[in-house]
Amino acid sequence: MTDPNTFAEKTLLSLLEKKKYQSVRDILSTMNPVDIAAILDELDEHWLPLVFRLLPKELAAEAFVEMEPEQQELLIRGFSDTELKEVLDEMFVDDAVDVIEEMPANVVRRILSQADPVMRRQINEILRYPEDSAGSLMTTEYVSLRPNMTVEEAILRIRRTGVDKETIYTCYVTKDRQLLGMVSVKDLLLADDDEKLISQIMEENVISVSTHDDQEQVVQMFSKYNFLALPVTDAEGRMVGIVTVDDAMDVMEDEATEDIQMMAGIAPTDKPYARAGVMELVKSRIPWLLLMMLSSTFTGLILNGFENALAVCAALTAFIPMLMGTGGNSGSQSSVAVIRSLSLGEVEFSDLPGVVWKEIRISVLCGIILAVCNFVKMLLVDRLLFGNEGITIMVAAVVCVTLVFVVMVAKTVGCILPILAKKVGLDPAVMAAPFITTIVDALSLLIYFAVACAILPI
Amino acid sequence: MTDPNTFAEKTLLSLLEKKKYQSVRDILSTMNPVDIAAILDELDEHWLPLVFRLLPKELAAEAFVEMEPEQQELLIRGFSDTELKEVLDEMFVDDAVDVIEEMPANVVRRILSQADPVMRRQINEILRYPEDSAGSLMTTEYVSLRPNMTVEEAILRIRRTGVDKETIYTCYVTKDRQLLGMVSVKDLLLADDDEKLISQIMEENVISVSTHDDQEQVVQMFSKYNFLALPVTDAEGRMVGIVTVDDAMDVMEDEATEDIQMMAGIAPTDKPYARAGVMELVKSRIPWLLLMMLSSTFTGLILNGFENALAVCAALTAFIPMLMGTGGNSGSQSSVAVIRSLSLGEVEFSDLPGVVWKEIRISVLCGIILAVCNFVKMLLVDRLLFGNEGITIMVAAVVCVTLVFVVMVAKTVGCILPILAKKVGLDPAVMAAPFITTIVDALSLLIYFAVACAILPI
Repeated sequence: MTDPNTFAEKTLLSLLEKKKYQSVRDILSTMNPVDIAAILDELDEHWLPLVFRLLPKELAAEAFVEMEPEQQELLIRGFSDTELKEVLDEMFVDDAVDVIEEMPANVVRRILSQADPVMRRQINEILRYPEDSAGSLMTTEYVSLRPNMTVEEAILRIRRTGVDKETIYTCYVTKDRQLLGMVSVKDLLLADDDEKLISQIMEENVISVSTHDDQEQVVQMFSKYNFLALPVTDAEGRMVGIVTVDDAMDVMEDEATEDIQMMAGIAPTDKPYARAGVMELVKSRIPWLLLMMLSSTFTGLILNGFENALAVCAALTAFIPMLMGTGGNSGSQSSVAVIRSLSLGEVEFSDLPGVVWKEIRISVLCGIILAVCNFVKMLLVDRLLFGNEGITIMVAAVVCVTLVFVVMVAKTVGCILPILAKKVGLDPAVMAAPFITTIVDALSLLIYFAVACAILPI
Repeated sequence: MTDPNTFAEKTLLSLLEKKKYQSVRDILSTMNPVDIAAILDELDEHWLPLVFRLLPKELAAEAFVEMEPEQQELLIRGFSDTELKEVLDEMFVDDAVDVIEEMPANVVRRILSQADPVMRRQINEILRYPEDSAGSLMTTEYVSLRPNMTVEEAILRIRRTGVDKETIYTCYVTKDRQLLGMVSVKDLLLADDDEKLISQIMEENVISVSTHDDQEQVVQMFSKYNFLALPVTDAEGRMVGIVTVDDAMDVMEDEATEDIQMMAGIAPTDKPYARAGVMELVKSRIPWLLLMMLSSTFTGLILNGFENALAVCAALTAFIPMLMGTGGNSGSQSSVAVIRSLSLGEVEFSDLPGVVWKEIRISVLCGIILAVCNFVKMLLVDRLLFGNEGITIMVAAVVCVTLVFVVMVAKTVGCILPILAKKVGLDPAVMAAPFITTIVDALSLLIYFAVACAILPI
C-alpha cells in the first residue's frame, strides 16, 4: 500500500498555479472519491471551490460526502443555490443526513430548502430518530419488490430504479409496507426460470432491526450474520429503510475507538487524534485525570491513618506500589475482558453469576501463583541478595497473603461493575482501568493493613 | 432483538427425544445458518451427527462453517468419506481454509484427500501465505471477465458461473491474469446498452492489496473506501483472489479485541471470553501480572532509597499513590490514543515529532490545571479541613511541581513508546497501560524525591 495522496497533491498544486485546469480535471477523474476528498480537505479556501467545480458532477458529489465537515461547510457557503441543488440531487439520503448533522442551523435550513420534496421528507424522517439508533443510521432508498412479480419483472424494476438506490444487491419484498421476505440479485440472476414468482424464491425468514434499536446491536447483527444490508422496521412492523454494511463497518470502528478511549479515561471525541486540536484533547482528558486525582485523597487518608503501623514496620512501605499496581492490573484485566464481551453481545446481565464465579476461580489461581513467586522473590532477592533485614518471613507472609486477597477483590470488582453499569444504562467502558484502579487502590491498602495488623505485632 | 435460540433449542431437544425428526428438519430449514450453528454448538456428541444429517445439504454446509472448531472436529471424525466430500463440495475455499487451520494434522489430511483436485490446489495456495496476511484471508473464487466481452456476455457468464463464487457483485477484468479493471453487477445491470464492451464501462483505477500485506492494512482499505470486495495480487501483479467485506469485518472486530486485550495486559486469545476456560484465561493473564509485579521491585527499591527523606517529612508519603496514579493515567491516555491511531492508519512513524510536540503541549496544560486544583485542595481540604499540620505551603509546592513534571514525562513516554514499538515490528498495543504504568511509577517517584530534595530541607 503506497500513499499516492501526497504526491498527487503536490502535482495538483503546481498544475493549479500554472492554471492547467484541464489536466487537474483529468488527474482527479481517474481517482477514487475518497482520495479526492482527502486532497480537497487539505486545500485552502482559495483553491477549494475552483477544484471542486472542475470535478465531474457525480464524482464531485461522491467526494463531497467523504470530506471533513469544516471543508464541506466552506464549500456549501460558497455554492450558489443551483450548485447546492445539483450536489444534493447526486447524494444518497443517508449521506445527506450525515452532512446535515454536522452543519450549523442556518446551513441546514439552506440544504433542506434546496433538496427536492421527496428527499426533504426522507431527510426529516431520518433526523427524527435518536442519535446512535438504527433509524438514524439507515437510508430510505432501497429496492422493494412485490411478491407477485416474476424474476424477469424484478430485474427490469431494478434496472429502471436502481440508479438511485444505495444498494441493489439485497431487495426487499413488501406488501402494504409489511416486510414479507428478501431476495438477492444473486438469487435473481441465478434463478433457473425467469417466469418464477418472487414469492417462490424469496427468503421468508428475514432478520430485521427496529428503528429505535441501538447501533451497537445493528453492528452485532452484521458481524454475526455477514449481511450486506439489514432491513429496519418501525413499531408497526412496516419496513422503513435499510442499513448497509459500509455504514455498519464505520460504526463498528467508531464504537471500538470509543470503548478504547473510555477504557483509558478519555472522554470520547468524534475527531480522530491526528485532526483534533490540543485544546480539544485537553478537554477530553482532564475530567478523568482531575476526578481520579481528587479521589486518591482517600488513598492518602488511609495511608495517614496507618502512619503508626508503617512507622513500626518500615519494610511494609516498600510493597505498597507493588500491591496497588498488581491490584489495578488484575482488576483492569477482568473489567476490560468483560467490557469487550458486553460490546460484542457475548455476555449479558443474566450471565453475572457465571462471570463472577469464573473470575473468582481465575483470581484464586492467579493470586496463589503471584504470591508464591513473590514470597520466593522477597526472601531470595530482597532479603538475601539486597540484604534487607527488615524483610522477615512474617513480613513476606503479610505481603503475600494480602496479594491473594487483593487479586481476588480486584478481579471480582472488575467484572461486576461493568455489567452493573450496563444494567443501569451506563456505558460499561466507564468502569475500566482508571475507575477500577482508583477503587482497587483504596481496597488494597485496607486489606494490606488489616492483614498486617492480624499477623504482625502492631 | 430477541434471542430465539434458547427457545428453539428446548423445542428441538424435546422433539428429538420424541423422535419427531421431520419436524426438527422443518424447524431448522426455516432458520439462518448462523443460528443453526449456535444450536449445533450446544448439542452433545450423541445428538450432533443425527441433527446435522437432518439438514438440507446446502444449509448443512453453511451451518458447518459457522460452528466452533471443537464441534466441527467431532462431526468430521463421524463423517463417512462421502459425507465429508459432500460438505466440502458445498463450501467456499476460504471457509474450507478457516476450518482446516483449526484442525489437527490427521483431520487436515483427510479433508484434503476428500476435496476435489481444484479445491485442494486452491486450499494449498491459500495455506502458503503467512497467517494474518491478505493472502491467507482471501478466497480464490471470484468472477473474472474479459475486456472484450459485451455487457450481455458478462451477465451470461455470471449467471453460468456465479453459483460457486463467494460474491458476484464485484467482477474483475483480467487479461493474462493481469488485473485491468473492475465492474460491478450494478454497472452491468444499469448499463444503457447491452452491446457495450466491458473495457468501455470498467473502472480502470482499481485499488488492490498484495498477498503479503498485513490484514490490518486490508481492513483499513475497506473502512476507507467502503468496498464490498478487494482484489489481491501477487508479487508479479497477477490477480490471485479477493477479500470480501464480511471477512474484513470479522478481522476488524478481532483486531480491535486483540488491541483491547493487550492494552489491559492480557495475552490475546482466539476464544471469546464466554467460551474460554478458567485455565486458558489464567494463562493469558498471568504473564503480564507476574512481569509487572516483579518489575515493581524497582519502585520498591526507590522507596527504600528515600526512606530517610520520608522519615524527615512524613506528609510526603500520603501523596505517593496520587502521584503514581495520575502519572499512570496520564501516560495511558496518551499511549492508548496513539495506539488506536496507529491501528487505524492515521498516525505513522514519520508523525513522531508532531505527536510528541502535541503531547507536550497537552501535558503542560493538563499538568498545570491538575497542579493548581491539587494545591488548593491540599491547603483547603487536607490542611484546614482535616487539620493536617504537616502539609505546609512548601510541601504542597513540592507535590504540585512534581505533578506537572510527572504528567509531562508520562505523556511523552506514553506517546513515544507505541510508535517506536511499531517501528521495530512489535505490536504497539504492548506499550499500553500496564507497561507504561510500570515505567511511569518508577519515574514518578524519582521526580518526586528530586523535587523534594531541591525544595525542602532534606
